[in-house]
Amino acid sequence: MFEKLLDPSSVAVIGASPDSSKIGNAVIENLVNQGYQGRILPINPSYGEILGLRCYPDIGSVDGEVDLAVIALPAKIAVQVMDQCLEKHVRFVIIVAGGFSELGEEGRKLEQQLLEKIRGTETRIIGPNTVGVLFPHSGVNTALTPGNRIWFPAQGDIGFISQSGALGLLVMDSITENGTGISGFVNIGNRVDVNEEDLMEMFLADGKTRSIVLYLESITDGERFYNTLKRVNSRKPVAVLKTGRSKEASKAASFHTGALASDDRVVEGVLRQAGAVRAHNEVELLDFGKAFAYAMPPKGKRIAVITTAGGVGVVTTDLLTGEDERPPLSMATFTEEETEELRKHALPIASLANPIDLTADGSTEAYRAILGILSESDSVDGIIAYALPQTPKIDASIVEPLKDAAKKKTTVVGVIGNRLAKDLIRELEAARVPAYPSIQRTVTAMKALYQYGYYQERIRNEQ
Amino acid sequence: MFEKLLDPSSVAVIGASPDSSKIGNAVIENLVNQGYQGRILPINPSYGEILGLRCYPDIGSVDGEVDLAVIALPAKIAVQVMDQCLEKHVRFVIIVAGGFSELGEEGRKLEQQLLEKIRGTETRIIGPNTVGVLFPHSGVNTALTPGNRIWFPAQGDIGFISQSGALGLLVMDSITENGTGISGFVNIGNRVDVNEEDLMEMFLADGKTRSIVLYLESITDGERFYNTLKRVNSRKPVAVLKTGRSKEASKAASFHTGALASDDRVVEGVLRQAGAVRAHNEVELLDFGKAFAYAMPPKGKRIAVITTAGGVGVVTTDLLTGEDERPPLSMATFTEEETEELRKHALPIASLANPIDLTADGSTEAYRAILGILSESDSVDGIIAYALPQTPKIDASIVEPLKDAAKKKTTVVGVIGNRLAKDLIRELEAARVPAYPSIQRTVTAMKALYQYGYYQERIRNEQ
Repeated sequence: MFEKLLDPSSVAVIGASPDSSKIGNAVIENLVNQGYQGRILPINPSYGEILGLRCYPDIGSVDGEVDLAVIALPAKIAVQVMDQCLEKHVRFVIIVAGGFSELGEEGRKLEQQLLEKIRGTETRIIGPNTVGVLFPHSGVNTALTPGNRIWFPAQGDIGFISQSGALGLLVMDSITENGTGISGFVNIGNRVDVNEEDLMEMFLADGKTRSIVLYLESITDGERFYNTLKRVNSRKPVAVLKTGRSKEASKAASFHTGALASDDRVVEGVLRQAGAVRAHNEVELLDFGKAFAYAMPPKGKRIAVITTAGGVGVVTTDLLTGEDERPPLSMATFTEEETEELRKHALPIASLANPIDLTADGSTEAYRAILGILSESDSVDGIIAYALPQTPKIDASIVEPLKDAAKKKTTVVGVIGNRLAKDLIRELEAARVPAYPSIQRTVTAMKALYQYGYYQERIRNEQ
Repeated sequence: MFEKLLDPSSVAVIGASPDSSKIGNAVIENLVNQGYQGRILPINPSYGEILGLRCYPDIGSVDGEVDLAVIALPAKIAVQVMDQCLEKHVRFVIIVAGGFSELGEEGRKLEQQLLEKIRGTETRIIGPNTVGVLFPHSGVNTALTPGNRIWFPAQGDIGFISQSGALGLLVMDSITENGTGISGFVNIGNRVDVNEEDLMEMFLADGKTRSIVLYLESITDGERFYNTLKRVNSRKPVAVLKTGRSKEASKAASFHTGALASDDRVVEGVLRQAGAVRAHNEVELLDFGKAFAYAMPPKGKRIAVITTAGGVGVVTTDLLTGEDERPPLSMATFTEEETEELRKHALPIASLANPIDLTADGSTEAYRAILGILSESDSVDGIIAYALPQTPKIDASIVEPLKDAAKKKTTVVGVIGNRLAKDLIRELEAARVPAYPSIQRTVTAMKALYQYGYYQERIRNEQ
């Protein structure tokens, strides 16, 4: 149903412009730079050509079908132009303009008109008040921000649905640092038609997507949201950042999108019942999306920690077993036989209680052997491994044993530091091993994985 | 008392080596690369010259005084070499080797011998089991890690005391990313002599230091710690990361350093009574150090938020006013006159309730005007400003108005994203405006500033 949004054969840009300060220019530039291979169709009666592409006076003049149209024109004109899109049987229309329900009564009427226009047609609207969509696998990028201000994520496995456009763009820019990719991004904006439930279904059906992350400030229909979330989340993990935990934030959200935020106790209950893991900020949201996309949840809460920096092991133990907003995990206890095996691969000064601290002597070879033991161990449900290239015997060759361990047992990797650490984290990312640049983020990702598995187990038992 | 550690006129490296894989080589390299201008004195009877520097057979052969000596030799030999250091009246001796109390009874005896040797002398020992010290202002860098594996922080205002060496090095490497500098770093290791209390006093007396951060796994003498912390912290803010919040972490810490960790309820009480803000992980620790070094605590909890991305304002409100491990702050309410004033500098669609959302139209000029109003407002105790270079009218020129606002009122800045954001955060860092790369870190830094001010106020009222 959403195939032609994910992979359209043609994209029209209504309100295309040769002026690089205009949205109607940025959208075309982004499509070109993203390497979109379908037809790009600038629409503007004033020009014969824009950015070297043939320009059409109106969408009706285009020969052949139009799967996706972006209307980069002000609100009232956008509503009028919808008629031409409907005549042309355009499947998906993205309405960029703000000035709808978020500004009050008049805007609400415009949205009503949009809905009436598409009733009974096959045309679906994304927005209005949206920064657009990005599908790296098909090269579709209709973002309104020029590519010289933001970097867009590469092809990846995470489906990203955001009620806020700017937040979505900023977060996408952020994750390019470590090379985290996405399968798609949609800013639902005022979601007059296509909403978060539709898009969860879309990403569930999409073979490229392995996990879904959702930023929401308000929920339109609690029951529909709950039912969709529960079903989708049981097949592909969904992490949710829902604001409005405090009353003041609910107020801020209503100023921002014009939608009424829901009582947070209700939201908390809905997420818990649906078995979805809640993120508390934008960094956690994508961290969880990555963990869910790359790793399986651990089967239990017994975690083994391996490090070459003792203090890092201590802080990890603290965060892992301490009470905070997430339930604590526990430190795995190794059997005597396992400890004996581990001993073979470490200096006498190394600590082989859990956390395993190999000290600065720890090498890739020791990691390979020990990760082998841990990933086969019945005493261990998950592994947190620190890959610290500042210690002399650790380098990029550690990626391979980490990848191998991750195939057998839930493995989350921490990589702390600048330069060498950043290079290593990008290599782990390329190998689809979930890796994080701080102790807290590493531990919280493991906790989220456990929480997801725990919730799903509970839901299975209820049935 | 610690002047000759902070700014020694000569540094001897006992166990100097031409072999680049040896610690006795890395220390000399780091001193040279850090631009240390005093005398570097390699000590090794087997060489006449190391790295182009004249090498001495023993420390007794050196002409002139030796302020600081680094012993890069194994534990037992290090203890013997101490006699020569004492004969030479070396003021500070750093003993790098492990193999002391962290390994048990025999090591404890060696530490006892060290203590007996220095009794009644002016010589002080740092370590053993330490990665060394770094004082960028005087170019002293005795870190045992070669500079091709880690980047060291620039000259700055934060004094960093760490019980863990590796954690300290990793954290220092991390903060180089945004150009955060330090006034000094000391890894106390097994702290047979110089301890965290001594070093808090040192950084208190040091004119280059504006805030102190402390990583501790255990506390030797609770009362002494409390008294020192309370006194130092009332004059220079001290942020503390003390592990052992969970029992399992206490166990891990005792394996790591051989010291017994303290009951965390006691620790929590001590920190609270001393008015010190507790960090929960290594990132918070340095984030707080930066906030404390660059900004004054807000006089109250009413925070104004300004952004060009609505969703960022909503998440900020959520984190700022929501209950978590830190007490909530509140959103400032502007007077009618203020709102009218604000209105002059924003599009009609901008939201001027708090958070102030200028939308993508927000410009440096609008920020300048609005920050001017907020920083003079009696309705506002602190400002959280997002500087988001992805929106078209924001660029590096925003640094100046942010700096101006920060002079008048507590201002913390959030900068989210890759590339342009990273450049901007480094410019803010250079201007000593506390800036953070995520919403959570921005908000938590403001909370820490408020918490520090609140504690100090309470302590003043008690007196």
